[in-house]
Amino acid sequence: MGNQQTELDAIFHALGEPTRRAVVQRLVRGEASVSELASPFDMGLPAFMKHLGVLEAAGLITSTKTGRTRICRIQPATLSAAESWFEDQRIFWQARYKQLDDLLVALGGKNDET
Amino acid sequence: MGNQQTELDAIFHALGEPTRRAVVQRLVRGEASVSELASPFDMGLPAFMKHLGVLEAAGLITSTKTGRTRICRIQPATLSAAESWFEDQRIFWQARYKQLDDLLVALGGKNDET
Repeated sequence: MGNQQTELDAIFHALGEPTRRAVVQRLVRGEASVSELASPFDMGLPAFMKHLGVLEAAGLITSTKTGRTRICRIQPATLSAAESWFEDQRIFWQARYKQLDDLLVALGGKNDET
Repeated sequence: MGNQQTELDAIFHALGEPTRRAVVQRLVRGEASVSELASPFDMGLPAFMKHLGVLEAAGLITSTKTGRTRICRIQPATLSAAESWFEDQRIFWQARYKQLDDLLVALGGKNDET
């Protein structure tokens, strides 16, 4: 539980920044080298590497170095864990909305005509 | 696009903190007063109100004051917007995994036996 909380902290923190989200959006389409990933951004390499470090620390990406090239890959399980958190919340608020709907119907509202 | 990015920044930033996630997890079950929300936390009210302010600025909750009581409510549309971002990413990585599966099958792998 504590660990899971810490993981969600790191995942959401990592995704709360547009450059890092853009890197994820690129890597879900397939692996890429650091230089490919960095090329769309008007940013020094040290600053960009820092963003990659935040993503890697959160478990959202991994990277492996072959010769002089570092290749980055998405970690789908981490994205799934974060998506599950939203699903868990949705179960509750959707159930509550359904109760309100049912109440409107029970009160003789015109809910079934809309 | 720019606005949407700013919204996602604020939403993920807000959710990257355990107290704020706990407040969301409480409010998806139904509205609550600030004092009800604050009671499980060993935290001064000013610090807790700051967390509520971050959630409200991100559009995750709203609050209305009646007399001396401030009632907070979840904003499901904002949770849905963030969940959609994960769905968008999943479409890509799942498609890529399917391609890999298909490739294994085409190569005569034992994919259909597992």
